[in-house]
Amino acid sequence: MNYSTIINKKKINIELNKEEVEWIVNSFVDGSLPDYQMSSFLMVIWFNGMTENELINFTNAMVNSGITYDLSDLKGPFADKHSTGGVGDKTSLIYGPLVAYFGVKVSKLSGRGLGQTGGTIDKLESCTGWTENISQEKFKEVLNKVGLSIMGQSDDVVPADKKIYLLRDVTGSVDSIPLIASSIMSKKLVIPADSIELDVKVGSGAFMKNIEDAQELAKVMIKIGKAHNRKVSVMITNMDKPLGKAIGNALEVKEAWDTLHGNGPDDLNELCITAASISLVSNHIFNDLETAKKEVTEVLKSGKAAHILKDFIEAQNGDFSKIIDYDKHFITKYKIEIRSENEGYLKFKSAESLGYLSMHLGAGRAKKEDKIDFSAGIYLTKTIGQFVKKDDLIMTLYTNIDNKNGFINLAKQLIIIDSKPSSQETIIKLID
Amino acid sequence: MNYSTIINKKKINIELNKEEVEWIVNSFVDGSLPDYQMSSFLMVIWFNGMTENELINFTNAMVNSGITYDLSDLKGPFADKHSTGGVGDKTSLIYGPLVAYFGVKVSKLSGRGLGQTGGTIDKLESCTGWTENISQEKFKEVLNKVGLSIMGQSDDVVPADKKIYLLRDVTGSVDSIPLIASSIMSKKLVIPADSIELDVKVGSGAFMKNIEDAQELAKVMIKIGKAHNRKVSVMITNMDKPLGKAIGNALEVKEAWDTLHGNGPDDLNELCITAASISLVSNHIFNDLETAKKEVTEVLKSGKAAHILKDFIEAQNGDFSKIIDYDKHFITKYKIEIRSENEGYLKFKSAESLGYLSMHLGAGRAKKEDKIDFSAGIYLTKTIGQFVKKDDLIMTLYTNIDNKNGFINLAKQLIIIDSKPSSQETIIKLID
Repeated sequence: MNYSTIINKKKINIELNKEEVEWIVNSFVDGSLPDYQMSSFLMVIWFNGMTENELINFTNAMVNSGITYDLSDLKGPFADKHSTGGVGDKTSLIYGPLVAYFGVKVSKLSGRGLGQTGGTIDKLESCTGWTENISQEKFKEVLNKVGLSIMGQSDDVVPADKKIYLLRDVTGSVDSIPLIASSIMSKKLVIPADSIELDVKVGSGAFMKNIEDAQELAKVMIKIGKAHNRKVSVMITNMDKPLGKAIGNALEVKEAWDTLHGNGPDDLNELCITAASISLVSNHIFNDLETAKKEVTEVLKSGKAAHILKDFIEAQNGDFSKIIDYDKHFITKYKIEIRSENEGYLKFKSAESLGYLSMHLGAGRAKKEDKIDFSAGIYLTKTIGQFVKKDDLIMTLYTNIDNKNGFINLAKQLIIIDSKPSSQETIIKLID
Repeated sequence: MNYSTIINKKKINIELNKEEVEWIVNSFVDGSLPDYQMSSFLMVIWFNGMTENELINFTNAMVNSGITYDLSDLKGPFADKHSTGGVGDKTSLIYGPLVAYFGVKVSKLSGRGLGQTGGTIDKLESCTGWTENISQEKFKEVLNKVGLSIMGQSDDVVPADKKIYLLRDVTGSVDSIPLIASSIMSKKLVIPADSIELDVKVGSGAFMKNIEDAQELAKVMIKIGKAHNRKVSVMITNMDKPLGKAIGNALEVKEAWDTLHGNGPDDLNELCITAASISLVSNHIFNDLETAKKEVTEVLKSGKAAHILKDFIEAQNGDFSKIIDYDKHFITKYKIEIRSENEGYLKFKSAESLGYLSMHLGAGRAKKEDKIDFSAGIYLTKTIGQFVKKDDLIMTLYTNIDNKNGFINLAKQLIIIDSKPSSQETIIKLID
C-alpha cells in the first residue's frame, strides 16, 4: 500500500477499496502519513467527493481509530440526537427528558462551544459540580437509572476526526459534504444508539449555507447510518434566527427547564416536540408522527418530564438548585436593556452576530482555552417577525465585563426594524 | 494576505491576483507557509489549472526566488534550448556548436540525470576536468570566446522550483501542465536568452504521455515566454524510441562529436538540424526555416562546427582528448553483444526500458547520490523499424559490473521482433 498509488487513483475518480481507505486513515493517525500528504488527499476529496463505499469505509476507519461504547448489558432502545450547531440551541436538554419519559434511553456524547456557537457541555456546567468526565460504568448507571446521560467527548474517542479536522481547518477542506458527514457520523457511531436524530442547521450562521447542501449532507449521513444499522432521520432547520429566547449557558438551562414545564417559546417547543416524536416513532413507541407529537406535546405541557433533566444533572453531581433559584445564583454586574428606536417588524442582522455578541458578553469562547461566564448572555424579549413599537424592550444583555456602552452599540447594530415581517419558519424539512 | 482566503478563492475558480500568487510562492520559500498548506494549494492547481495571469505571476515569483544572470555586457543574440528529458538525448551537444557557428551565443543551464534519463552535465563530465561549477564571469568569458557555455544549476537558482517540485513529487501533483510549464520556464528565464527552443518529448517514457497534453504544455510555455519577451518555439518529438544509437555518457559525447563531423544517425541529425535552424530563424540569422536547414545541414556535413564542442569543453577545463582517443580511455570490463534470435522488424519494449538498462549497466543513477560510470552504456547497431536477420548484432552493452548473464536476459526482454515495421517518426510537430 502506498500513498502515490492511492492519490493518483482518487485524483482521476477511480474508487478506492476498503484497504486503501483504511490505510489512509490509520497511517495518518499513527503519524506515518505526513500532514502534507493527508492535506492533498483531503483536497482531492473536496473536488471528487467520495463514493458510498469510500464514505462508509472512511467513517468506519475513523470510528475504529479510538474507543467505542458497549451498551449491550442495558435494556434499550437507545436514541441519540445531534445538531450541527446553532445559536441558542438547548434542544438536547428538552429532547432528552421527553424521549426518556417514554422509555427510550438517550445516550449522548456532547461538545463544548467555540466562537458564536454554544456547547451542551458548557451549558450543563452552569450547575456547579456537573461533570462530563464520567466513566463508562457511571454513564451506564445514570442511563439505566434516569434514562438520560451525556458525556464529554474524550481524546480517545475518534482521534482520527480530531486530527483530520485540525488539518482540514487550515488547508481549505472544511466545506466538503463527505468530510463533514463522516466527521459527524463517526462521533455518533461510537455509541450504539438504535436511532440518530440529526438537526442540520441552514443559514448564514450555519455550516450549511443553503438547503440544497443541507439536503445532500442529510442524504449522505442517512446512507452512513444505514450501513451501520442505525435509523437516521434528519431535520433541516432554520439558523437565520436564534432558537428560543435565551442565549448563554445558565440562561439556556433555565429556558430548557421552563420549556419542560410548558412555558417555552413556540419555535423551541416545535423543534423539541418534533425531534422527540421522530425518535419515538423510530423506536416503535408510536406508530406515526401525528400520534407521537400529540402525546409528546401533552407531556411537555404537563411538566411531567421535567424532573428527568434535574435527575440527570444531579446524577452527574450537578447542583440543580442553582437553576431553580436562578435569580439568587446568577447575578451579573450589568443588566443592560436594549430598546427599539423605531416602530416596525423586528429582524436581527444574523443569528451568528447574536452568537458573537453573547460570546463578547462572556458566555462564549473566542479561543479554545478561554473561560466561560455561566451567568452571561442575552435574553430576547422580542424575536424575529414580531411587531415592536418605539422604546419596546427587545433584549437584555447580562455581563460582568465593564464595557456597557460598547455592548449597547454592538447590540443596536444587530437590530433591524423592517416594514414587513420576515419569515419565522423553524423546521424547513424532515428527511429520512 | 492569508492562506485561507487564497485557497478558498482558487478552489472555486476565482482568479488570484499578483500579490496573492507572489505571497504563496514567497511564503513557501521562506518557510512561513507550511508544506501541508502548499500541498493542498498545489492539488487545487492540479484540478483547476491556472489562468494566464496566474501562470505568469507564479513563474515570475519562482524566477525571483533566486539569482538571475545578466548578459547585458555581451554581444547577443542569445539562444537557449531545453528538452523535457529522454533516452539517448545528446542534442544540446550538437545544437550548441551549430547555432554558435552562425554567431548566436548558446547560454545554457543544464541538469543531471536520474532514473532512465541522462543529464547533459553528467555527459560532459566524461571529459575529465570539465566542470559545471563556474562563476558567472567565467560563464560569460567562455560564452564570449567560444559562443557556447553550459553551467550546472546551483542551489541559488530558482530555489522555489526545487522546493515545490520535491513536494509535488510526494503529494500527487507532478502531472499538472501549469506546474510543469512554470517549473521548466522558471529555470529558462533566469538567463536572458532571446530565443528558447523547447523539445517536448512524447511517449511512454516521457513526462507527456500523449500529443494533446504535449501541445497544451507547449502552448502554455509559449505564453509564459511571450510575457517575458522571449521567442519560445516548441518541437514535439517522439520518445517512444531512444534518440540516436548511443545511450550512456562518454558514448553520447562521442556520438555528438561524430555527428558534428557528418557521421550521425538520421534521427539525431534531423532533430539537431531542425532545432538549430529554428533558433537561427528566431534570431534573424535566416529568414525562413527552409534556408536555415539547408545551411545548417551543410555545416553539419562539413564538420566545420565540431571544434566548438571541443573548444567549449576545454574552456571549462575538460580533457577532450579522451573523446578523440575514445577506445584508449573508455574501456569496460564487459562488452556484451546482443544478437537477434529471430528475423523481422526490430522494436524495443520502450525507450524508458532501454534507459533503465543503461542505468543498471552503471551509466545512470537510481538515487540522486549514486555514482556514474562514464564508460558504461548501450550502443544500438540496429534501431527501431530496421529489418534484422537471425544472429544480427542489435546492441552492445558496456559495463564494469559483474552481472553478464543478468544483463543479457534484461536486454533480450526489451527486444521485440515484429512482422511489420513500426513508425520511425522523430519530430511530430513544430509549434510557435
